[in-house]
Amino acid sequence: MIADEMYALAKRLWPINRSLTGDGVRQTLKILQCQLPELTMHEVPTHTKVFDWTVPREWRVRDAWIKTPRGERICEFQKNNLHLMGYSVPVRATLDWATLNEHLYSLPDQPTAIPYVTSYYQERWGFCLSHEQRNGLDRKGKYEVYIDAELFDGHLTYGDLIIPGRSSQEVLLSTYVCHPSMANNELSGPIVATFLARWLAATPNRRYTYRFVFIPETIGSIVYLSRHLDSLKSSVIAGFNISCVGDDRSYSYLPSRSGNTLSDRVALHVLKWIDPNFRRFSWLDRGSDERQYCAPGVDLPIASIMRTKYAEYPEYHTSLDSLERVVTPKGLFGGYEALRRALEAIEANVCAKVTVLGEPQLGKRGLYPTISTKETARNVRTMMNFLTYADGINSLLDIAELGNVPIWDLYEYVETFEKNGLITIESSNS
Amino acid sequence: MIADEMYALAKRLWPINRSLTGDGVRQTLKILQCQLPELTMHEVPTHTKVFDWTVPREWRVRDAWIKTPRGERICEFQKNNLHLMGYSVPVRATLDWATLNEHLYSLPDQPTAIPYVTSYYQERWGFCLSHEQRNGLDRKGKYEVYIDAELFDGHLTYGDLIIPGRSSQEVLLSTYVCHPSMANNELSGPIVATFLARWLAATPNRRYTYRFVFIPETIGSIVYLSRHLDSLKSSVIAGFNISCVGDDRSYSYLPSRSGNTLSDRVALHVLKWIDPNFRRFSWLDRGSDERQYCAPGVDLPIASIMRTKYAEYPEYHTSLDSLERVVTPKGLFGGYEALRRALEAIEANVCAKVTVLGEPQLGKRGLYPTISTKETARNVRTMMNFLTYADGINSLLDIAELGNVPIWDLYEYVETFEKNGLITIESSNS
Amino acid sequence: MIADEMYALAKRLWPINRSLTGDGVRQTLKILQCQLPELTMHEVPTHTKVFDWTVPREWRVRDAWIKTPRGERICEFQKNNLHLMGYSVPVRATLDWATLNEHLYSLPDQPTAIPYVTSYYQERWGFCLSHEQRNGLDRKGKYEVYIDAELFDGHLTYGDLIIPGRSSQEVLLSTYVCHPSMANNELSGPIVATFLARWLAATPNRRYTYRFVFIPETIGSIVYLSRHLDSLKSSVIAGFNISCVGDDRSYSYLPSRSGNTLSDRVALHVLKWIDPNFRRFSWLDRGSDERQYCAPGVDLPIASIMRTKYAEYPEYHTSLDSLERVVTPKGLFGGYEALRRALEAIEANVCAKVTVLGEPQLGKRGLYPTISTKETARNVRTMMNFLTYADGINSLLDIAELGNVPIWDLYEYVETFEKNGLITIESSNS
Repeated sequence: MIADEMYALAKRLWPINRSLTGDGVRQTLKILQCQLPELTMHEVPTHTKVFDWTVPREWRVRDAWIKTPRGERICEFQKNNLHLMGYSVPVRATLDWATLNEHLYSLPDQPTAIPYVTSYYQERWGFCLSHEQRNGLDRKGKYEVYIDAELFDGHLTYGDLIIPGRSSQEVLLSTYVCHPSMANNELSGPIVATFLARWLAATPNRRYTYRFVFIPETIGSIVYLSRHLDSLKSSVIAGFNISCVGDDRSYSYLPSRSGNTLSDRVALHVLKWIDPNFRRFSWLDRGSDERQYCAPGVDLPIASIMRTKYAEYPEYHTSLDSLERVVTPKGLFGGYEALRRALEAIEANVCAKVTVLGEPQLGKRGLYPTISTKETARNVRTMMNFLTYADGINSLLDIAELGNVPIWDLYEYVETFEKNGLITIESSNS
Repeated sequence: MIADEMYALAKRLWPINRSLTGDGVRQTLKILQCQLPELTMHEVPTHTKVFDWTVPREWRVRDAWIKTPRGERICEFQKNNLHLMGYSVPVRATLDWATLNEHLYSLPDQPTAIPYVTSYYQERWGFCLSHEQRNGLDRKGKYEVYIDAELFDGHLTYGDLIIPGRSSQEVLLSTYVCHPSMANNELSGPIVATFLARWLAATPNRRYTYRFVFIPETIGSIVYLSRHLDSLKSSVIAGFNISCVGDDRSYSYLPSRSGNTLSDRVALHVLKWIDPNFRRFSWLDRGSDERQYCAPGVDLPIASIMRTKYAEYPEYHTSLDSLERVVTPKGLFGGYEALRRALEAIEANVCAKVTVLGEPQLGKRGLYPTISTKETARNVRTMMNFLTYADGINSLLDIAELGNVPIWDLYEYVETFEKNGLITIESSNS
Repeated sequence: MIADEMYALAKRLWPINRSLTGDGVRQTLKILQCQLPELTMHEVPTHTKVFDWTVPREWRVRDAWIKTPRGERICEFQKNNLHLMGYSVPVRATLDWATLNEHLYSLPDQPTAIPYVTSYYQERWGFCLSHEQRNGLDRKGKYEVYIDAELFDGHLTYGDLIIPGRSSQEVLLSTYVCHPSMANNELSGPIVATFLARWLAATPNRRYTYRFVFIPETIGSIVYLSRHLDSLKSSVIAGFNISCVGDDRSYSYLPSRSGNTLSDRVALHVLKWIDPNFRRFSWLDRGSDERQYCAPGVDLPIASIMRTKYAEYPEYHTSLDSLERVVTPKGLFGGYEALRRALEAIEANVCAKVTVLGEPQLGKRGLYPTISTKETARNVRTMMNFLTYADGINSLLDIAELGNVPIWDLYEYVETFEKNGLITIESSNS
């Protein structure tokens, strides 16, 4: 059910022409606001200095196409926004094939795919098309090229959402809204983030405050950090960059720069129990906004839980990364569940301390089978492992790792043991 | 010779009906006192509060049997004390087969074995028998059941023995005396402990004080800890729980809870050199009194050196765990030797510091061959490895590990080098 | 070219009869002074106390041979100085075969090799010869033995050379000059050391001071340490013992005693990138002057980068370890290059800190390709890995290890990034 809702929302967002800036981002955020009324939209003016960067001009596209010598319109932006190179400058010209060809982008190795190409920081124009189509172009005659676009001083747009908890300590969830019509990278991120926010908002008695950030990649996280760095550095205790969470082919982990934050430990634990064959990447394989969140001097504890990682599947950054071909309801739900379990684990990661010396007598509390055979001895073991490691130093995550069980198997015991006075609880965020 | 003495003592202790409490424990300890005159017996009253537990009533059995419809006596306690469920309440009744059957325990998978079953903390009665025998019982006619036992306010009995050394720092050796007629688990433990105590008492100039504890499992160690916790925490620098040290099929190691105490390091070292194929268990595999000694807040440095571990051999906790079938003189002696070497290593684990800068000239002290060839170079290496690691920080155990030799190969050099003034010695217990 | 120069120098030094002391050492150092005019020779009197040792008498040999019953001269020192046992006392005698035989040394397993045998600290005389030749000796008749040698109160000779840098912190390079005519062990060491010193002297703007030591093995390093211990302990931040660096069969690493000094880390890094199959030895395999430099209480950070290690090749310590058979120009140059790269890495091992928050915008500095495709993304990665790890804590060596690239691939970026103001540089020697 959630799976289907997620997929339906993805379909709705699919055709929008998102980019670093522009109305596509605004339309996307407005649709998300229907799900998350508290989501706030922010506008940052072009030319604003942000750390080492400057907010670029806003890009607006109305139409774009090529007319062939035979009068056929191809590479129509209206039909597939990938046909137009991102941030293309306007052009209206008649060209021969050779000149046009310098502005065409295709993939010889994937002849049916339209590649995704952008030129944010160098003025260019270009069209992207399948290699098959390109090979079929007449080399004689004139081509008409039409790009009705403008680059102008406007704004960069992003959204954020705070879901407060008992503590002002925060968990940061960041995803991006700057990719045109591609599915795993990247409609899956904002979809999963949206449903995580819905789940959290509906979960009573949250321990931590949750901050969701919907931004354009790179420049967006740099903008966000430049505006909130000090407060994020003092309050964020864990978090995840959410990208490529929509296909059902694998699970993947990419660490924070240090590799040993709470986010890393939780991600590794959750993925190990969800899918023992999950793929473990290194910081050298990074490629999304963790590059900013974990930069030296920023040093936020942000790791990535993904399905199949960007640059690791053949459809990546092409028109083949579609809702029909790559992303599925099951894939989206799997990405959601992995992250939901990770957030749940962060919430549950208390520090328990057994209140008695020596092993507790479970029997007098009705927790122990009253006859000792080979059989019943095994049944008691799970409880006893919890209690033996509940030394007031180990966190629940430590106890789960030491006892070799998923942390969610322990949630009921935290409650039972605390009710029985067998443990006391302190909070922990390590 | 020691092997045979150990086996003879095991035979003598075999028929006694040991349990958590009762005369069987007292008889056992009295027999051990013939070997260890300084062994002291202690009595703790029923109902005494000990940490989270209460000392149970004392159990006394005079006789127990079942009379079949044909008038045959079976499950006679006098013939095999395993026939009677431990802590059975008294009963005298005539029953049909169906009612009796609810009180019978057998093992379908091991049809010739009488299982070992107890019900310490829930009032019950029951008989244990081979599955073969159970299957042969008439389903018609009346059975007469007779258990002449009582549960009464009496005492829990245990023994301890202090063998003083130069230092008040202690090595704790604990074993249990609560199992009826089974051999590896557990006659082997008290036998090996007794002979270790005899060896220590006969060893002059001991560095550490040795504390031997003979107790019923679980409740006994909890009683002992509740009476001596502070003094044990301040004085015990190492120790072992002694159980399952009597068969000759394997060697096993089970760590302390932290896994990195002196006891752990010594156990791993000794076992590696005695039997490179020794089995290494984890704290998750625990199941004896290390559960109490290493509990959070108790935290004593207690590891286990075993032959074949409880629950890891087919005869475990059945009548098949016998002196004929499982435990051998060689097995007992092997258990004794492994622990003796471990205690020897703890005694010998000094910190040596070389007195000269650069490599010492062994030649002028008569320690170096006077001609240098390929051959003699190798012979000198063992001595040189000792000296290069004798930096005043490494303990003898460290030096043995670094030099990849058994620690006992170094004992002679400690003496030689100290005599020659090449090293100075400081004590170490890490 | 350097390779050929090295080989030529080796040929020139080959015939000299080096030993712990004597004119052979002086001649060798004088020849090296032609290459290194600043190399200083030092003389230490016989009987000088050095740590646990005493400087031995000086050994001078004029001639030595055996005349067979047939009048043939064999084992002529003038033809091969290995024929005479090192430190042989003088003798002139006529002997039967049986008596002579007690003074002969040969290798049954290597019947064509003359072994290298010495007796520094016990007065002896002896001749070394091939086993084939020994087997052919007449057992009848008289042999004339002639050793015109003397052991007298003289001096032990060694050389050292300081190449000053901006810092008074030192890198220590030590090699030995006490082996007669053998090539890999040991003409290669002094040859490679000489050419490293030439390279350093010609390298402008050195950060560290370099100390080269040419000594007899063992007693020489003990002498040197006894004279310079305090200053070396306070100034040496890295260094290598240079031995067995002349054949072309393998690369080898032997650690310092602690195994984790800057020298160890640099050696492992350089060898990994030069030859992934390099052989990694342990401190237990030591056998050269690292034994003194890393002795407890001396504790200098000295590791070894070698080609094929002493005692690990069949020709070791025999006449077969020759310039024709074992050492090659390519082998010498490979040893030189590995050590040169190690010294270069120590010089370059600064601590870089990125000056901007978030990822720097390489584009505005002309460092980033202006179009983003799958292709160009990979090309940028090397630069970005440098910058992401340039946190002011990681050294350049750390950054290379983290980024999985040879440190020399980063040298250009240090310059570029510093020039662009993207990083600031602090020195590091860890």
